[in-house]
Amino acid sequence: MKYHEIFENALASLKTEKRYRIFADLERQAGKFPRAIWRAENGLEREILVWCSNDYLGMGQHPDVIKAMTDTAQKMGSGAGGTRNISGTNRPLVELEAELADLHQKEAALAFTSGFVSNEAAISTIAKLLPNCLILSDALNHASMIAGVKNSGMQKQVWRHNDLEHLEELLKAAGNDRAKLIVFESVYSMDGDIAPIEQIADLADKYNAMTYIDEVHAVGMYGERGAGICEREGLMDRIDVIEGTLAKAYGTLGGYITGKACIIDAVRSYAPGFIFTTAMPPAIAAAASTSVRHLKNSKTEREGQQRQAASTKKKLSEAGLPVMPSETHIVPIFVGDPDLCKKASDMLLEEHGIYIQPINYPTVPRGTERLRITPTPFHEDALIDDLVDALNDVWARLGLSFIAPGAVYDINKQPEQQVFEAAGG
Amino acid sequence: MKYHEIFENALASLKTEKRYRIFADLERQAGKFPRAIWRAENGLEREILVWCSNDYLGMGQHPDVIKAMTDTAQKMGSGAGGTRNISGTNRPLVELEAELADLHQKEAALAFTSGFVSNEAAISTIAKLLPNCLILSDALNHASMIAGVKNSGMQKQVWRHNDLEHLEELLKAAGNDRAKLIVFESVYSMDGDIAPIEQIADLADKYNAMTYIDEVHAVGMYGERGAGICEREGLMDRIDVIEGTLAKAYGTLGGYITGKACIIDAVRSYAPGFIFTTAMPPAIAAAASTSVRHLKNSKTEREGQQRQAASTKKKLSEAGLPVMPSETHIVPIFVGDPDLCKKASDMLLEEHGIYIQPINYPTVPRGTERLRITPTPFHEDALIDDLVDALNDVWARLGLSFIAPGAVYDINKQPEQQVFEAAGG
Ligand SMILES: Cc1ncc(COP(=O)(O)O)c(C=O)c1O
Ligand SMILES: Cc1ncc(COP(=O)(O)O)c(C=O)c1O
Repeated sequence: MKYHEIFENALASLKTEKRYRIFADLERQAGKFPRAIWRAENGLEREILVWCSNDYLGMGQHPDVIKAMTDTAQKMGSGAGGTRNISGTNRPLVELEAELADLHQKEAALAFTSGFVSNEAAISTIAKLLPNCLILSDALNHASMIAGVKNSGMQKQVWRHNDLEHLEELLKAAGNDRAKLIVFESVYSMDGDIAPIEQIADLADKYNAMTYIDEVHAVGMYGERGAGICEREGLMDRIDVIEGTLAKAYGTLGGYITGKACIIDAVRSYAPGFIFTTAMPPAIAAAASTSVRHLKNSKTEREGQQRQAASTKKKLSEAGLPVMPSETHIVPIFVGDPDLCKKASDMLLEEHGIYIQPINYPTVPRGTERLRITPTPFHEDALIDDLVDALNDVWARLGLSFIAPGAVYDINKQPEQQVFEAAGG
Repeated sequence: MKYHEIFENALASLKTEKRYRIFADLERQAGKFPRAIWRAENGLEREILVWCSNDYLGMGQHPDVIKAMTDTAQKMGSGAGGTRNISGTNRPLVELEAELADLHQKEAALAFTSGFVSNEAAISTIAKLLPNCLILSDALNHASMIAGVKNSGMQKQVWRHNDLEHLEELLKAAGNDRAKLIVFESVYSMDGDIAPIEQIADLADKYNAMTYIDEVHAVGMYGERGAGICEREGLMDRIDVIEGTLAKAYGTLGGYITGKACIIDAVRSYAPGFIFTTAMPPAIAAAASTSVRHLKNSKTEREGQQRQAASTKKKLSEAGLPVMPSETHIVPIFVGDPDLCKKASDMLLEEHGIYIQPINYPTVPRGTERLRITPTPFHEDALIDDLVDALNDVWARLGLSFIAPGAVYDINKQPEQQVFEAAGG
């Protein structure tokens, strides 16, 4: 058994498949977002523009959020000092949970150190507590939900992405008496499409299933108070458990679940991933609360983001770049090849100072590699114009396909076909 | 299927078993550690003394650590803004990883948002990459290691706690050709005992197994530069992967692994729990680096902790309190009943202003419920004397057993027996 060879080989195969990841080393700069300092592998530093951040609203640089973090660190120190149960529960964390329960209009909330852990811990624990539970999982669910499903050890059936008929088929086959947990997302982060939440809730009622939604890419950004798509569509009370993150639109770190007190308390009491780990530092909790509270009351950020995202889509599309259909703030540009996707990204960074990470398998299916662009309220019009020029240049030089100006890229057709059809139509 | 009833029942059974947990709501106060404000359920606030924190050296209130956190938050904002791969890798995090690799004298390090996640992600990924891997796991391994073992889906065999003969038996039976991963801890946190690391490494060499050690309760506290028990015993190069946390002695948040570059890179490249989650905020990484660096150069904190822990043990033992055997800074006092353990804790908090969380099942085996005391350099002599008085009072009023003054509690005998023997001996 030559252990090191095994690891070397595992890495070599990623390199052959062109999906070995190199992380861009960035220094964010509060007050200058989306600008950051990029440190290249040769050690040289350069100011670049980040076009793929999930700090969707730039709240990570909001002065009130930073102030809450620094004030609390000064007052209470840098860490929590223990697990939630053993001396680690701190006042700002208790307040954060109250804030989150209020946000989603639920009885209770529970905070975790990440959205990944909240999904893993909550889904696995809820499913394990329900006798003979059948988990019905959307085909495009995030890795953290898949981890929760798998680690529950319960039976799982995957329904075709956003396909209500398929979901109903599976629910009906399971019967009304069996415990069932439907897990899905509101905004799917790589395509930017939205689940038919109301119809899923109707099906859950009809077949007596529990519902669990991941609103990670929606909280802060949709709804009157930023509670997400469920709030926007008046459906918060139709879903049993709403999960979210504090690390994207809220600009900090951590994840959470909200729901009826008995469900939340059961997860709190039974989930190893919640119990046996140090609590979130008070400074992070205070920063997160401040961000949530701010976005409950202010729509400026949401409106700015929607406006700049729409404008980005429009301008890229008018330039004939293959913008994939998206109902949200997420703007994916189709490439369809891991190597070209990486090359496009490298060229953008090195020659245009624009940072957009390539999105390759396993984050998206093979053959659908893409650049995923996330405009924020801080990506002003002039920056969008620069982005279009840079992409145009890279597309032309790499021989990537353009489509008909103004068209939307159809993942089911070849690029050539789309240019032709559009041009001939 | 009445979902809510199921959760209510799950909670009711915890209450019946006296192991339903109520979290003490604390407000830590930088500069006054181990003092904190405790907010009782009736809303009243009161200053109390924390005697069960895992901020073992009080680094969570160290001015340099807090300053690194606040300076970095002011400069770079409150969050990382993305996963490690998608715009979330930040300069302070890259520096932290270099600091940690240096600490353990390994080629590389990888940081996670918690020690729990580092164990879960690293153990499961390493074991999955090794064909037909057999995992050999110490019986008292932490929940996060058990999660990693389980989620790998590979075969596992549990060896009796710290029992080298049993471990060798299992290694021999598996044979030299099969891939084998031995996972264990250096300091076991609930008993305070230490693994026979050198002998385990010898066995690993003899039977060609990989070794993975959790030094969560040792990093910062043992060894010339605080790298843990492996450093103290000159064994860092004998262990393949050393795992640690930044949330205990280092006073911040996060976990990590260190080892040969190919192993660390494989975990970085293959572990869903590492890939699909937002990176640690730069401010946390900077605070952690500062703390690690400080404890590389300063022994004051380590020496202070050892001194106060020894003194606490001695004084408690002289008072006839059932101090369990511990080779480390951890001071467990035997109670042996979940209800009495909770009552003792409540009485200490409410009447003496001393906070020591009861440790009940499943954190420790049933029948070994205990109070786990963790003296820090900041628990001065006078505070230790107060602790002894308070415990004496509570022990007497609850009718808990004392043992012979100066004796060490033996978990395998009844308390009565121990008093008698010692008194008659
Ligand atoms: C849909 C979805 N759920 C959960 C997560 C995990 O959230 P966090 O980054 O807070 O761990 C992510 C991404 O990181 C995500 O895209
Ligand atoms: C032995 C051991 N390993 C790992 C962990 C997890 O570390 P963290 O608190 O950083 O998640 C803990 C406790 O929390 C622990 O006791």
